Amino acid sequence: MTDSAYAWFEREQRERGIDIAQVKASLNALKIETPSWGYADQGTRFQTFKKAGAARTVTEKLEDAAMVHRLTGACPNVAIHIPWDHTDDYGKLAADARSLGIGIGAVNPNLFQEDAYMLGSVTHHDPAVRRRAVEHLLECVDIARATGSDALSLWFADGTNYPGQADFRQRKGWMEESLRELYAGLDPHMRMLIEYKFFEPAFYHTDLADWGMAYNTALKLGPQAEVLVDTGHHPQGTNIEHIVAYLLDEGRLGGFHFNARKYADDDLIVGSANPYELFLIFSQIALAERDRAHPAVKRTAERIAYMIDQSHNIEAKVPAMIRSVMNVQTQYAKALLINWDALAEAQRAGDVLEAEAAVREAFEQNVTPLLQAVREEAGLPADPMQAYKASGYGARIVSARSPKAVTH
Amino acid sequence: MTDSAYAWFEREQRERGIDIAQVKASLNALKIETPSWGYADQGTRFQTFKKAGAARTVTEKLEDAAMVHRLTGACPNVAIHIPWDHTDDYGKLAADARSLGIGIGAVNPNLFQEDAYMLGSVTHHDPAVRRRAVEHLLECVDIARATGSDALSLWFADGTNYPGQADFRQRKGWMEESLRELYAGLDPHMRMLIEYKFFEPAFYHTDLADWGMAYNTALKLGPQAEVLVDTGHHPQGTNIEHIVAYLLDEGRLGGFHFNARKYADDDLIVGSANPYELFLIFSQIALAERDRAHPAVKRTAERIAYMIDQSHNIEAKVPAMIRSVMNVQTQYAKALLINWDALAEAQRAGDVLEAEAAVREAFEQNVTPLLQAVREEAGLPADPMQAYKASGYGARIVSARSPKAVTH
Amino acid sequence: MTDSAYAWFEREQRERGIDIAQVKASLNALKIETPSWGYADQGTRFQTFKKAGAARTVTEKLEDAAMVHRLTGACPNVAIHIPWDHTDDYGKLAADARSLGIGIGAVNPNLFQEDAYMLGSVTHHDPAVRRRAVEHLLECVDIARATGSDALSLWFADGTNYPGQADFRQRKGWMEESLRELYAGLDPHMRMLIEYKFFEPAFYHTDLADWGMAYNTALKLGPQAEVLVDTGHHPQGTNIEHIVAYLLDEGRLGGFHFNARKYADDDLIVGSANPYELFLIFSQIALAERDRAHPAVKRTAERIAYMIDQSHNIEAKVPAMIRSVMNVQTQYAKALLINWDALAEAQRAGDVLEAEAAVREAFEQNVTPLLQAVREEAGLPADPMQAYKASGYGARIVSARSPKAVTH
Amino acid sequence: MTDSAYAWFEREQRERGIDIAQVKASLNALKIETPSWGYADQGTRFQTFKKAGAARTVTEKLEDAAMVHRLTGACPNVAIHIPWDHTDDYGKLAADARSLGIGIGAVNPNLFQEDAYMLGSVTHHDPAVRRRAVEHLLECVDIARATGSDALSLWFADGTNYPGQADFRQRKGWMEESLRELYAGLDPHMRMLIEYKFFEPAFYHTDLADWGMAYNTALKLGPQAEVLVDTGHHPQGTNIEHIVAYLLDEGRLGGFHFNARKYADDDLIVGSANPYELFLIFSQIALAERDRAHPAVKRTAERIAYMIDQSHNIEAKVPAMIRSVMNVQTQYAKALLINWDALAEAQRAGDVLEAEAAVREAFEQNVTPLLQAVREEAGLPADPMQAYKASGYGARIVSARSPKAVTH
Repeated sequence: MTDSAYAWFEREQRERGIDIAQVKASLNALKIETPSWGYADQGTRFQTFKKAGAARTVTEKLEDAAMVHRLTGACPNVAIHIPWDHTDDYGKLAADARSLGIGIGAVNPNLFQEDAYMLGSVTHHDPAVRRRAVEHLLECVDIARATGSDALSLWFADGTNYPGQADFRQRKGWMEESLRELYAGLDPHMRMLIEYKFFEPAFYHTDLADWGMAYNTALKLGPQAEVLVDTGHHPQGTNIEHIVAYLLDEGRLGGFHFNARKYADDDLIVGSANPYELFLIFSQIALAERDRAHPAVKRTAERIAYMIDQSHNIEAKVPAMIRSVMNVQTQYAKALLINWDALAEAQRAGDVLEAEAAVREAFEQNVTPLLQAVREEAGLPADPMQAYKASGYGARIVSARSPKAVTH
Repeated sequence: MTDSAYAWFEREQRERGIDIAQVKASLNALKIETPSWGYADQGTRFQTFKKAGAARTVTEKLEDAAMVHRLTGACPNVAIHIPWDHTDDYGKLAADARSLGIGIGAVNPNLFQEDAYMLGSVTHHDPAVRRRAVEHLLECVDIARATGSDALSLWFADGTNYPGQADFRQRKGWMEESLRELYAGLDPHMRMLIEYKFFEPAFYHTDLADWGMAYNTALKLGPQAEVLVDTGHHPQGTNIEHIVAYLLDEGRLGGFHFNARKYADDDLIVGSANPYELFLIFSQIALAERDRAHPAVKRTAERIAYMIDQSHNIEAKVPAMIRSVMNVQTQYAKALLINWDALAEAQRAGDVLEAEAAVREAFEQNVTPLLQAVREEAGLPADPMQAYKASGYGARIVSARSPKAVTH
Repeated sequence: MTDSAYAWFEREQRERGIDIAQVKASLNALKIETPSWGYADQGTRFQTFKKAGAARTVTEKLEDAAMVHRLTGACPNVAIHIPWDHTDDYGKLAADARSLGIGIGAVNPNLFQEDAYMLGSVTHHDPAVRRRAVEHLLECVDIARATGSDALSLWFADGTNYPGQADFRQRKGWMEESLRELYAGLDPHMRMLIEYKFFEPAFYHTDLADWGMAYNTALKLGPQAEVLVDTGHHPQGTNIEHIVAYLLDEGRLGGFHFNARKYADDDLIVGSANPYELFLIFSQIALAERDRAHPAVKRTAERIAYMIDQSHNIEAKVPAMIRSVMNVQTQYAKALLINWDALAEAQRAGDVLEAEAAVREAFEQNVTPLLQAVREEAGLPADPMQAYKASGYGARIVSARSPKAVTH
Repeated sequence: MTDSAYAWFEREQRERGIDIAQVKASLNALKIETPSWGYADQGTRFQTFKKAGAARTVTEKLEDAAMVHRLTGACPNVAIHIPWDHTDDYGKLAADARSLGIGIGAVNPNLFQEDAYMLGSVTHHDPAVRRRAVEHLLECVDIARATGSDALSLWFADGTNYPGQADFRQRKGWMEESLRELYAGLDPHMRMLIEYKFFEPAFYHTDLADWGMAYNTALKLGPQAEVLVDTGHHPQGTNIEHIVAYLLDEGRLGGFHFNARKYADDDLIVGSANPYELFLIFSQIALAERDRAHPAVKRTAERIAYMIDQSHNIEAKVPAMIRSVMNVQTQYAKALLINWDALAEAQRAGDVLEAEAAVREAFEQNVTPLLQAVREEAGLPADPMQAYKASGYGARIVSARSPKAVTH
C-alpha cells in the first residue's frame, strides 16, 4: 500500500509545483537532539510517578537515546545535563556514546538544585554564590571540550517571587558579568545558547524573561552567543514563529527546545497540543533555508540546533521520544510542501485569502507516505513506532531496570 | 504613636460615614484556617529547598499553627492532609491540637501521590482504582468525625495530558458517581467543599476545570455540597470577585483557598501579587454579609470557610503564614470601609466615576492603625510579625528541628 | 486526478476501519448558518475599511448568503440581526429568502447600539431601559414567528468597566427576570440560545461571562433555553472541547458561533488560527452523535445549531464565508475519521500514546478528496472556492454595489 | 481636618525614614501629557456612544486639556494626533495652546485609518503606500517643529490577520528602512518614541509586537530613538516593571502611554484595574531617579515622557482625565515612600519577607493628605475632582457643545 500511496502523493505534489527531491534532501538533513533526562523519571511538583523501564543511569540514558536514533536515523546526538549526568571521565562518556552510534550534544549546566541557589545563581546577591555558579559554567565548557560537544545550552531558573525581593538592574548586571566570563572561556568553535523563560520556578520575575532579554544579552556578548527558543516558555497567545523569523533575520537564532503546551510550560510531546503552531515555526525556517538573497539568514537557519526538552510524566519514555521526533518531522515536512512562489505571488497581490490558503494547504497534506518513503530510502523502518513495538526493547528495559537496582 | 494614629483614623472614617464598631466586630469574626502542609517543606517541580526549622511531623505542624494563632488570634483551626498527616489515633490528634489551643479544620484527602492514580482517581478507567479512591474519601469522613472537623475539602488532580487520552463524559459520569457515594457518607452537619482548577498537574484537561463544573456537581449532589474557590486556579484575567458574587447569590460559595499568583497557580503569599483583587473579592463578601434583603445570601457569606493554601518555596514558613493572615485582614478591613450607601447612590445615578471612587477610596485607606487597635483590644500583639520576631520561636525551631532528625 | 485520489483515500480509510458511507452521510447532514452581517462591512475600533462589493442592504445580504449556499450546499439558512436587518414586512423577507433558495435562521436581537444601553440593557439599573430591552427581545420572537425561524440567539454586551460601577448580584437578578419574561413569550418549538463572553465591550465584568453562567441561566429558565458557544469568547488556554462535551452531557449545548482567534475575540475565519482545536471540538460532537448509550446526548448533538459569526475586516466577504464553511467541513470530516473502537480500546488499556495517536492520526488525514467526492455526489462544485472565482459573482457585486449607492 | 491629617502623615513618614521634602520635590516635578483625542468621543468596535459635552474640534480639546492643567498643575502639554487635529496653521495651534496656558506635546501620526493602509503602512508590500506613510511621518516632524514639540510618538497598527498573509522578514526590512528615513529627518533635539503592541487591530502578528522589537529598532536607528511603553500592550501576566527597569538600564525608556486593562488593550482609566502594578512601575522609576551610581540611568528616568492614552467609552471625559492624573500621582507618591535603605538592606541579607514588606508597606500608605498638601503649597485645589465639580465647567460644555453643532 505504501508504495502506491507514495506514488500518488508524489504525483500530487509535483502538480502542486513542489520539488520533491529537494524536500527529501531537507528531511534527511533534519537532525534532532534528544535529552538524556527525557529517558529518566520526571514529574510535576505534585508527584513523580515511577515508570517501569525508566533509565536510572547515564549509561541507560545513552542506550535509550541510541535506540531512538537507530529507529529514526534523526537523532545522532544526546544532550547531557550536569550534574545529573556527572561522571569522572567525560572522554569515556563520549566514547561510550560513540560505541552506541551516537554523540554528545549540548551540555546543560544545572544551577537550580543546590540550596545555595535558592535566591539565584549568576544573579545571586552573594558574590560567593555567583562565583560558584560561574565555576560550574566553566566546568561545563571543559565537559563540552572533553566530550566533543560544541554547544552550551543555558537555562537559568534565576528570578524572584515577590516585588522587592531583589533589584532587577543589579541582577541584570551580575548576569551580564557572569556570562562575559563564561563567554571568554569558550573555544572559538563553541556556541552558547541562551534560553529565556516567561516564568517558573520564579513567579514574580525571571531574569531572562523573554527573547528580547536573551537577544540583548547575546548581542552584548558576541557572535558565539545566540538565543535558544523553548516552545513552552512564552505568554499565552505569543506568535512564536514571528520571534523565530525575527531572530533568523538578526542571525541570532541558535536553537530550539521543543515541547508542547496548552497552559504554561507543560513540557508535553512536541506537536501534540497545537500542531499548526509547530508547522508555522518550521515554515519560517524553511523559508529562511531557501533565502539566497540573505546568505546570513540562510546560514543561520541551516545551523539551528534542534533539541527536544520534555517531561514525560505519564507516558512511556522511549516511545514518547520517538513520537516527538516523528511529530517534528511531520510538521517540517508539511512546511516544505508550501509552494513559495505561489505564496509570494499572492502576497505581492495583497490577496489575503489566497496567501493564507497557500500556507494552510501545505499543512493539510498527509505526509505519512512521504516520511515513510524517506525513511525506507535511508534504510530505516518506515514506521519507527511500529518498529519499536516490534523490537521488544520496551519489555527488555522494564525487566532489566528493576526499581530495586536504582543507583543515582 | 499608634493611639493618635488610630484616633485620627477613626475620626476620618466617621466623617466618611463608616460605622467603626461594626467594622471591628466583622474583623474580630474573621477566622482563617491555616494548612498543616504550609509549615513543612514544599517546592516546585525543579527543587524543594530544605528550610531550617520547617516542620517535619504533624506534631510540629500543630505547634506552628498554634503559634500563628497565638499571635494573630485569627487562626483557631488547622487543615489537615491525609495521608501526609496520617496518625493511628485521630482522636488523640484532635486532643493534641486542643491542648495547643487550636482545632482541626478541613480534612483534605490526597488522591494524587500514589502510582495507582497516575491516570486519575475517582475518574480512573479502572473500577478498582475508583473504588480505592472512594474508600480513601470515606476514610476522610471518618477522620473528620474523629477529629471534630465539619468539612471535607476536595481537590482532584484528575485530568489528562493529551487529546484522546480519555473520554471526558465517561470520566464526568465516574466523578459524579464517586461523589454521590461520598455525599451519602457525610454526617448531616458536614459539608463537602468542591475545588476546581484550570490546569496542573494535568495539562490537557482537568475534570473539574472551572467553577461551573464544581457548581453543577454540587447542585446534583445536594445542599451539603458547595464550591471552594482557590484564588490561583483561574485563567488569566478572570474576574474572581464576579464568580464569588455569583456563587454567593446561588448560596453555594463554601470556602476559599487563599494564595497569590501572577502567572499560573503560583501559590505565593496571598495578597502579594495583586492586593486590589483580594480587596474586591472581600468587597463582594462584605456586601453579602450585610444583605438583609437576601437572608440566604447573607447566611452563605457568614459561613464561608477561609483557608490559606500556599507553597512557601523560598521564605520562612511561620512568618510567611503570619504575613498571609495579616494580608487577608488588611484587605477585608479595607472592604469594610466602603461606604455602601454612597456606592449604591452612585450606582442608582449611573455615575460611573463616583461609583468607582467609592470603592477605590476604601482601598486607599491605610488600615494599619485599625488592625492594631482591633488586635490590642483583643489582647493580641498589635503587630504579630514583630511579636514573632521578638518571640525567639524561629530560632528555637531551627535548632530543635535539625534536618538529621527528620522522620516522615 | 480527483477520482484516483478519492479511490486511494477510500481504500486507505477502509483499511483504517472507517465506515465511509456513514462519514459521507454525516458530512451531508452538516448545515452551517451564515450571518447576514458577515456580508456587510465590519471593522475594528480603529477603522472599518470599505470593501468594494460589500452588501449594503438586507436584500444584498440574502443574495450573498444564497450564493454561498448555491456553491456549498451547506448553508440553507441565514441568521439575521435586528435592527440591522429591520424591514417592515418580515413575511416578505422570508419569502425573498425562499425565492433565493434559503431560509431565515436565528434571529439576533441587538441591545448594544443605542445610547440608552450604554450601561446595560436587560441588566440596566433603570427599569425603563430594562423594559425597552425586553420589548425588543419579544419583538424578535415575533420576527422569528413571522420569518419561520425557530431560534433566538442572545448575546448581551452587558457588563461594567470599573469595580463598583454596578452591583453584580442585582444585575444578575435583573438578567434572570428579563429572560424569564422572554422565555414565557417563546413558542413551544422555539429555542433560546444563550451566549456568554469573557470580555468586550465591557472590560471589568460581563454579566454572562462564561459557560457556567449561561448554563445556570438556562437551567433556571427551562428546557427551551440552551447554551451557545462562541469559539472566540473564552480565556486563553480554555479547553473548549471539554466545555462542549460537558454541555452535551447535560443536554444543554444549543449551538455555536464559529470563528477563530489567537488573542481575544478576534473573529477571524474559523479554523485559521488553530485548526486542531476545531477538530477536537468536532471530535466531541462526532462521538456524541454516535452515543447510542445516551440517547439524550445523541439527540442534543444532532440538533446543534452551527453558525458562523466573524468579522471580515480585510478580506473579501463572500469568499471568506466560503472558506469558513470549507474549514468547518474539513475539521468535521477529519473528526469522522477517528477510529472510535481503537480509541476506546486504547483508553481502556490506559495506553496514553496509543489513544493520543488514534485522535491525531485522524487529524493528519488529507480530506480534500473526500470532501470533493461528497460535493460532486450531491451535484455541487467539487471546489466551491474555485467555482466562486469562476462565477464572476465577485466582479458583478463590485460593480453593482457602488459605494455611492449606499442606503442604510 | 486636612492639616492635622497631613501633620500626622508627615510625622509618620519621618519615623519611617522618609525625606518628605524630597518626596514633594519629586511630586512637583511629575508632568503628565494628556491626549487631545481623550477629550473627544471614542468607543469600542460595537459602538461609540455620544457623550454630551465631548470635544468636537481641536480648539475644544485644547480647552479641556487646559482645564485639566488648571486644576492639577501637572499637565502642561497636550499630545496631538494627525490628521485628527489637522489644521492649516500649526504655529497658530501652538499659540492658541499657549494662550490657554499649555503647550503641544508629542505629535502622533495616524497610519491606520486610510483604506490604503488596510494591509500595512510603512510595512506595506506596495512601495507607493510605504512612500505615502513615510511622507506622513515626515509631515509630522514638520508639525512638531512648527508647534515646538520635541517628540514623535509612533504607534503602528501594522500587522497581519492570517498566517501567510505577508512575509515577516520582508516587512521588518521595510519597517527599518522607513524609520531610518524618518530618523534622518529629525531635528537633533527631537526624540522618536517607538511603541509596541501585542495585538489589535492585527490579530495574527503585529510588526512591532513587543519591547524587544521596539528596542532593537531603536538600537539600529540611534540615540534619538527610544521605546514607548503602553501599559495595555502586553500579554497577560507580563511583568511590566521588569521591562521598565530593563529599558532604563539600557538608557532606552522614552515614555509611557498610561491606561489600565484587565483583559486586552482595554484603555481604561490608569490605575483602576491593578493599582499595585502602576505602583511597582513607579517604584522602578523612583529607584532609577536616585541612582547616582548610574548617571545614564538616572538621566533616562528623569526625562521619561509620561502620557495618558485611554478610551473613555462610558465615563465623562474631563473628570476621567482628572481621575487618571490623580491616580498616577497617587502611585508615584506611594513609590516615593519606599525606604530604599531598608529595602537594600533586606535584599543584601536575602530576607525575602522583609524586602517584600519594605515595598508593600509603602503601597499601603494613604497618600491623600500628602497630595493635598503638595497641591495646596503649589496654589492648586487640594482636590482637583471636587474643584472640577464646583467649577460648573462640565455643565457649560454640555450646553455649549450641542451635538447639532458638530463639525469634523
